[in-house]
Amino acid sequence: MSAFDVVDLIRAKRDGAALPGDAIAWLLDSYTGGRVADEQMAAYLMAVCWHGMTEDELDHWTAAMIASGERLDLAGLPRPTVDKHSTGGVGDKVSLVLVPLVVACGAAVPQAAGRGLGYTGGTLDKMEAIPGWRADLDAERMRRILAEVGGVICAAGAGLAPADRRLYALRDVTGTVESIPLIASSIMSKKIAEGTSALVLDVKVGSGAFMTSVDDAHELARTMVRLGTRAGVRTEALITAMDTPLGRTAGNGPEVAEAVETLRGGGPADLVEITVALARIMLDLAGLGPGSSGSSGSPAPDPAAVLASGAAHEVWRAMVRAQGGDPDAALPTPAFTQVVPAPASGFLSRLEARAVGVAAWRLGAGRARKEDAVVPAAGLRWFAGVGEEVRAGEPLIELYSDDESTFPRAVEALAGAVSVTRTRPASAPLVLAHIR
Amino acid sequence: MSAFDVVDLIRAKRDGAALPGDAIAWLLDSYTGGRVADEQMAAYLMAVCWHGMTEDELDHWTAAMIASGERLDLAGLPRPTVDKHSTGGVGDKVSLVLVPLVVACGAAVPQAAGRGLGYTGGTLDKMEAIPGWRADLDAERMRRILAEVGGVICAAGAGLAPADRRLYALRDVTGTVESIPLIASSIMSKKIAEGTSALVLDVKVGSGAFMTSVDDAHELARTMVRLGTRAGVRTEALITAMDTPLGRTAGNGPEVAEAVETLRGGGPADLVEITVALARIMLDLAGLGPGSSGSSGSPAPDPAAVLASGAAHEVWRAMVRAQGGDPDAALPTPAFTQVVPAPASGFLSRLEARAVGVAAWRLGAGRARKEDAVVPAAGLRWFAGVGEEVRAGEPLIELYSDDESTFPRAVEALAGAVSVTRTRPASAPLVLAHIR
Repeated sequence: MSAFDVVDLIRAKRDGAALPGDAIAWLLDSYTGGRVADEQMAAYLMAVCWHGMTEDELDHWTAAMIASGERLDLAGLPRPTVDKHSTGGVGDKVSLVLVPLVVACGAAVPQAAGRGLGYTGGTLDKMEAIPGWRADLDAERMRRILAEVGGVICAAGAGLAPADRRLYALRDVTGTVESIPLIASSIMSKKIAEGTSALVLDVKVGSGAFMTSVDDAHELARTMVRLGTRAGVRTEALITAMDTPLGRTAGNGPEVAEAVETLRGGGPADLVEITVALARIMLDLAGLGPGSSGSSGSPAPDPAAVLASGAAHEVWRAMVRAQGGDPDAALPTPAFTQVVPAPASGFLSRLEARAVGVAAWRLGAGRARKEDAVVPAAGLRWFAGVGEEVRAGEPLIELYSDDESTFPRAVEALAGAVSVTRTRPASAPLVLAHIR
Repeated sequence: MSAFDVVDLIRAKRDGAALPGDAIAWLLDSYTGGRVADEQMAAYLMAVCWHGMTEDELDHWTAAMIASGERLDLAGLPRPTVDKHSTGGVGDKVSLVLVPLVVACGAAVPQAAGRGLGYTGGTLDKMEAIPGWRADLDAERMRRILAEVGGVICAAGAGLAPADRRLYALRDVTGTVESIPLIASSIMSKKIAEGTSALVLDVKVGSGAFMTSVDDAHELARTMVRLGTRAGVRTEALITAMDTPLGRTAGNGPEVAEAVETLRGGGPADLVEITVALARIMLDLAGLGPGSSGSSGSPAPDPAAVLASGAAHEVWRAMVRAQGGDPDAALPTPAFTQVVPAPASGFLSRLEARAVGVAAWRLGAGRARKEDAVVPAAGLRWFAGVGEEVRAGEPLIELYSDDESTFPRAVEALAGAVSVTRTRPASAPLVLAHIR
């Protein structure tokens, strides 16, 4: 690899130049090798926030992040692999239902997931509310569960795109998180390294999401779909609304309970709708959709029917057991609860996602710093969804916490988050676009 | 001082916001105190390269840099104080003539100067070619020489704007040097802290200068004049051409010899012109110009006449002696010389400043890294200035070095730097603008 001068590269990027691929590979390799300092990479990242990256730069940047670690080889599994990634939202327990559902439909799902930071929860935090369940698997064990059970949700191994780990920590303290190419490469480097053959992205947009602008969400989705496709991973994306939290619960244990209810054929309509929409795309990408010519000649599975049948629940139970969890154990219950009544009679017309997320966070469901622990029983449940009738003074939201002193600030977060109207509000679409 | 979140400040700057003064003061104070990390300041500096600073932000930034150290108090000296700063050029030995000249005209000049980096030389490097001369003075000794001799050229004490020292080292390795507000605040914080009452700036523009665009030079000059004025230092600027090196020499010892020749009433016309132009402004700013009503009632001194009289040379000798130097000692001579002949007969129409600077640097006159030493005898002299006749094959440039092996690369630097035309070229103006 040829040698470059790091200051020359920073200045070139600062002045709006596109860097050649070998320079980008050298820069990332030198950073992970400790020959480029944090302050130099921080200046470079801010210049990327400024000028963005060309497609060619981004391809090389992402490839270098993948090359910083191992890329799992999942070829040879009996089923086609397909995964899903969400950019994160409030009440987003979709993976807990979707992974067993897609497995029940015949695919294998190798989901390397993350923990939450701030007010959106992480899939691993939710799963860890299940007594005994462990997130950490080595590559060999992950592969065995995939072969035997078909689905796995686990922590991304330290060997997957380690450059991203260091870069993300640096971006977090240097105000350089909010850059579409940096976000896209961070997500996609881990997903590509994880070894899946296909991937669906749930790019959430709205007050409770990382992306609050529809244009930015489209750009992020297009960027990630292009990156995945270029790296040989069949990738598509849905852009979905996140102004209202998904389902009726936010918080780790409460969301697991709601996911299990949905796996049993019940659950809230919005959660079922988005899960089935993502499952259809995953099955298409895995070659198991209605348009595919399956070798078996059997008809393509219908995820809505499979979910209603309870078959996905059986997969869930096997997945939980395979990682040490007890699917029959009771979930943690909170030491304290408090009820927030409806402010007026009429129809619930607004339940603001970000406020609900912040309330759950303040109750103990989220963490402020990476090293903090989360409280599994903490969170909230609302008794009516947007568009449903409520009656003044009757319970609208129930708060859960192990620490009574957290209630006042959680209630404060919810102030102004609820609107009630006399007439029933028009229903807003959940799936906004399909990017492929 | 209120507390801020550094990541919030970086993100605000990244998004183009203007920061309030207390936030800027907190940021710089926290950086020098080690509570804001280098990578955070580097990201902030790149965001400043991106969005610039408002006048209000720059005032607070500069004030915070000054407040990071001591501000010398030169009130009570018998003469008015006035200083000069040059943004640096090739063959720029102006200070060596100007400081004693302005002192000979009745002002006091407290010049805290720097060493060179890259192909433009530093005033201290030139002075240190004089046997015995020392750059380092404490504030008390500086004040005493100012009172007794009237002029001092010395190293900026470590106590003057120490935040600038750390910031400059960081900017140097993070590609954030080239920002007009950062350059202006770096220069002006040290000059204001130095305690002078008035200041003239020589902002050089051209191939041999840091600023190569006339628009940028104007913006830098206006920014510095405003900063000085706002801090109570009467400040004006000349914008001067630096496409051709000044005088007939480049290199430390050779430039001292040329300065002494000029102080004796000789010397090249361009050096005399620019020195006298700067001296007139300094005397005006010091209240000693023709428009001022001096208490003595004596006529205002004419710097051109004072220079021709040899009076400035007497001040020079006293200044050199006051800092341990021997004004009668021979300057170091080079171990080797080599001659570059004129490529054609006619009129010298171009002698490219940057190429001459790079040649001097390669001969040993400059340093590549801060910790390198310079060779006092190294450099070059040219026998004809632009507009003068030359004859093919006769000596045009003489190279000086203590290391014969440096000649080929110095000659290489000069390739294409010289043009000879049949007709005499029109003379180009040296002083381009006066900013006040």
